[in-house]
Amino acid sequence: MKIFTLVEICKLLNGELQGNQMLSVTGPEQLEYATSDQITFIGHRRYLPLWEKSKACAAIINNNIKAEPGEGRAFVRVANADLAMALLLGSFLPEPPVFDQEVHPTAVVHPTATLGTGTRIGAGCYVGPGTILGDRVTLYPNVTIMDQCKVGSDTTIWSGTVIRERCVVGSHCLFHLNVSIGGDGFGFRPSADGRGLVKIPHIGNVVIGNGVELGSGVCIDRGKFSSTVLGDGTKIDNLVQIGHNSRTGRFCMMAGNSGLAGSVTLGDGVIVGGSASISDHVTLGNGVMVGGGSGVMNDVPDGGKVLGYPAADSRETLKQWVALRKLAKEG
Amino acid sequence: MKIFTLVEICKLLNGELQGNQMLSVTGPEQLEYATSDQITFIGHRRYLPLWEKSKACAAIINNNIKAEPGEGRAFVRVANADLAMALLLGSFLPEPPVFDQEVHPTAVVHPTATLGTGTRIGAGCYVGPGTILGDRVTLYPNVTIMDQCKVGSDTTIWSGTVIRERCVVGSHCLFHLNVSIGGDGFGFRPSADGRGLVKIPHIGNVVIGNGVELGSGVCIDRGKFSSTVLGDGTKIDNLVQIGHNSRTGRFCMMAGNSGLAGSVTLGDGVIVGGSASISDHVTLGNGVMVGGGSGVMNDVPDGGKVLGYPAADSRETLKQWVALRKLAKEG
Amino acid sequence: MKIFTLVEICKLLNGELQGNQMLSVTGPEQLEYATSDQITFIGHRRYLPLWEKSKACAAIINNNIKAEPGEGRAFVRVANADLAMALLLGSFLPEPPVFDQEVHPTAVVHPTATLGTGTRIGAGCYVGPGTILGDRVTLYPNVTIMDQCKVGSDTTIWSGTVIRERCVVGSHCLFHLNVSIGGDGFGFRPSADGRGLVKIPHIGNVVIGNGVELGSGVCIDRGKFSSTVLGDGTKIDNLVQIGHNSRTGRFCMMAGNSGLAGSVTLGDGVIVGGSASISDHVTLGNGVMVGGGSGVMNDVPDGGKVLGYPAADSRETLKQWVALRKLAKEG
Repeated sequence: MKIFTLVEICKLLNGELQGNQMLSVTGPEQLEYATSDQITFIGHRRYLPLWEKSKACAAIINNNIKAEPGEGRAFVRVANADLAMALLLGSFLPEPPVFDQEVHPTAVVHPTATLGTGTRIGAGCYVGPGTILGDRVTLYPNVTIMDQCKVGSDTTIWSGTVIRERCVVGSHCLFHLNVSIGGDGFGFRPSADGRGLVKIPHIGNVVIGNGVELGSGVCIDRGKFSSTVLGDGTKIDNLVQIGHNSRTGRFCMMAGNSGLAGSVTLGDGVIVGGSASISDHVTLGNGVMVGGGSGVMNDVPDGGKVLGYPAADSRETLKQWVALRKLAKEG
Repeated sequence: MKIFTLVEICKLLNGELQGNQMLSVTGPEQLEYATSDQITFIGHRRYLPLWEKSKACAAIINNNIKAEPGEGRAFVRVANADLAMALLLGSFLPEPPVFDQEVHPTAVVHPTATLGTGTRIGAGCYVGPGTILGDRVTLYPNVTIMDQCKVGSDTTIWSGTVIRERCVVGSHCLFHLNVSIGGDGFGFRPSADGRGLVKIPHIGNVVIGNGVELGSGVCIDRGKFSSTVLGDGTKIDNLVQIGHNSRTGRFCMMAGNSGLAGSVTLGDGVIVGGSASISDHVTLGNGVMVGGGSGVMNDVPDGGKVLGYPAADSRETLKQWVALRKLAKEG
Repeated sequence: MKIFTLVEICKLLNGELQGNQMLSVTGPEQLEYATSDQITFIGHRRYLPLWEKSKACAAIINNNIKAEPGEGRAFVRVANADLAMALLLGSFLPEPPVFDQEVHPTAVVHPTATLGTGTRIGAGCYVGPGTILGDRVTLYPNVTIMDQCKVGSDTTIWSGTVIRERCVVGSHCLFHLNVSIGGDGFGFRPSADGRGLVKIPHIGNVVIGNGVELGSGVCIDRGKFSSTVLGDGTKIDNLVQIGHNSRTGRFCMMAGNSGLAGSVTLGDGVIVGGSASISDHVTLGNGVMVGGGSGVMNDVPDGGKVLGYPAADSRETLKQWVALRKLAKEG
C-alpha cells in the first residue's frame, strides 16, 4: 500500500495546503465511500454537504470554492480539482502486471514478424507473418494479431483482442479486453435473381491514429474500399460498433453501446452519448454533441447539439418532450 | 439420450399424475415444437388451445388450471409449473464438457498462483502471479485471469473470458463466453490547454458477489477509486455494459444490450429491461423495474416502475404514447 | 499490388467500355477518396456531380444513366453497378492469411475429434471431444470449439470466436471476431420463498444453417429446449444479441447492436435495422422491415414495415413524429 503525506501531495499537484498540515493518506476515494485515512475531492460547491458527512480526512478542492476544512481536517487547494485528481490517481496506480519473460514461450510469433526493443508478448499470443510491432509494445496474454499489421510504439493491447490482417495501429494506444478490429463490414446486395444475397468483399483495412483508447468489446470493421479511420486521441467506450469506411476526427469520444453505421464521418472533438446511433453516410461536423440514446439520421453542422429519436436540435427535442408530457396530462 | 417415466417425473416434481399412467418421455419441449415422446408445460390456461394441437404426450400443468389431458395423454399437476420445469430441465441436462486432465499441459499457471482442490483448467488458459482460485473452480479453454485475482469455489468460467488484475469473484458464479472484467473505465477530462484529453487512471477493481451470472460479451469496468460491485445473485444478460464504480444490490437482473453508465447505484431486486440505459450517477431504489428500451436520467425511489425515452413513471409514459397516437390521427 | 486494364474489367463484368480505352487501374475506391489510378462507381445519377470532382480515372456506371465520362476518362457500363462492384472487389481482394501448417502444433485437437480434408487449424485453437469439422474448414488462431459440435464444409471462423458443446454450424458460413455461440439463455424464476432466483437449465443448442455470416461480438444463446435457429443465408452484423429459442428464416439481415429477446420468430427475408430490439415471443412475418432504433413489442404480418419506440406501422410513426414537431412549435 502506498502512503503519501499531504505535503507531498501539495507539491505534486502544485496546490496549497489549508488546515491540518500533518496528515497522510493511503489513497483517494469519492466523498461517500472514503475512510478516515483517505483523501477525496470537491469539484463543485454543491458537494460541500457531502464533505460535512464524509469520513475522509482531506479533500482536493477548487481554489474558487469558499469553505473551511473543519476541525483536524485539511484541504489541498488547486486550480482544477478534476485534473489534480487524475494526476493523484496516477501516483496511486499500482504497477501493471509483470512479465517474467519478454516473449512468453507459448506465444507464437511468426519468424517474419518484427518486434521492437522492449516489446513484450504474453502467453498464448499470436503474431502473424510480416507484422511489425514497434518499441515497448505490450501484448497481454491471448492477443491475436494477424498478418502484415503495424502497431506503433508504446501501444498496450489487453487480452482477448484480435486485429485482422493489414490493419495499422498508431503509437501510445490502449486497447482493452476482447476488442475486434478489422472484421469484414456488413455489406450485402440482393442477388440478380432476387432469391439471395451477394456479399460485398471488403478489400480495405482499419487505420487507427496515435493515442486512441478502445473499450472492451469494441468492434471496428475494415473498409470496403480503403480504410475505416479513427483519428488521433479518439476515445471509444465499451461495446461500441464502428461500421466500414466510417472516419472519426481527432479527440472524438463515443460512450458505451453507441454505434456508427457505414461511411459515417465525424469531425474533430465530436462527443456521442451512450446508446446513440448514427445512420449510414451521415456527417457530423467539428464539436458536435449527440445526446445519449439518440438516433441521428441527418448531417449536423459544426458545433451542433442534437438529441432524441429521431435526433433533432437538443432544444427542439426538449420542447417536444415537454409538449408531450403536457398533452398526456391534458388528455 | 435420457428417458424418464412419468411416474419418476411425478416423484421428482412432487406432483400428481392425471390420465395415462404408463408414459415415458425423452425430454421437455415447448408446446409448438414437442414431438409425441416429449413432455411440455402449461403455465397458464391461455395455453390450453396450444395443448390441443401439440404433439406432446404429456404436460406439466399448474394445479389451479381445470382441464383434462385427453385420450391417451397425461398431466403432471404441480403447484408451480415454471419452477417444476426448471427442476425437470436440470434432470435432462447433459453432462458438461469433460476434462481429460485437471490442468491441461498447454495452460499457463504462474508458479505463485494457488489452485483449490478439484479445480480444473482447460487448454490455453492463463492464470497470473498471485491469483487464487478456490475449490472446484472450472476454467474452460482459453480463459485469461491476470495477476492477484481471487475466484471463489464452485465458480465456472467459459472460454474467451478475461479478468484483469486485482479483481475479486465470489463462489458459485457462472460467466459465459468472451466476458470482459476489469478494463479501465471511460474517464477523460479536457486538458488544461483545451487541445486534448487527459486520461483518468483507474486504481480500483471489480468485486463480484456469490451466485452471479454474466452473459456472453458482458463488459464490467474497474473502479476509478475502490470498486465496481455486483451484489450476490445478480444476473446479467449478453452484451451488457457496466460502467466504472457502478454498484448493484442483491438479485438484480439486467436484460440484453442494456447498460449502466458510471457510478450508477441499483438497490436489491432491480430489473432492467433489454436495451435500456441508466445515466451517470443515477440511483434506482429496491425493486425498481425499468422497461425495455428506456433511457433513465433521474433517480427512481423504491418500487418505482419507469419506461420510455426519456424514462418516466410507466403509467405516465403509456399515457404519452396513447396521446401521441391520438394526436397523429387527428392531425 | 494488383493492376487490371479497363478492357479486362469490362470482360469480367460483362460491361461496355465508353471513353478512354487504354486505362489501367490499381483498385476501386469511392468517389470522394479515389486517386487518379483508381476506378470508382456511380450507382445513381445524383452522384454525377461527385464524379465531376473525383480524381478517379474511370467509373462503373449503370447502363440507364445518361452521361459522358469526360476528357481522358472512361465509363464501364453495366446492368447493375452495385453487383458489378461486388464482383470487382472480389478480384482485387488480397489473399487471406496463409497457414504454414494445416494444424498448428500449439492447437489442441482432441483425439476423438474428426477433421475433414483441407481443414486448417491455427495456433492456440481448441477442438473438443467428438467434434466434427467438415472439409476445408478454416479456424484462425485462438478459436475454441467445445465437445460434440458439427461444422460444415468451407466454413471460416475468425479468431476469438467460441462455440459451446453440441452446437451445429452449416457449410459456407463466415464468423468474424470474438463471436459467442451457445451460452446459456437468460432464464430465471423467482424462488418459491420469494427471496432469490432459480436458474432455468438450458438443455438445447444452437443450429446455424448454410451460408450464414455473423459479425464480430455477436452472441447467440442456446435453447432452453431444443434449438436456437438461424436460417440459411442469414446475415448478422456486429454486437447483435440473439436470445434463447429465437428462430430466423432464410436470408434475414440484422444490423449492428440490434437484438432478439427469447423465443422470437422471424420469417424469411426479414430486415432488422441497427439498434432495434424485438421483445420476447414476438413473430415477424416474411419480408418484414424493422426501422433502426425501433422497439417491437407486437407481431407484424408478412411484408409489414414498422418503426419507432414503441414500434408501429412506419407511416403511422412518421405521422406521429411530424405531429409532435408541430405540437412543440405551437406550444
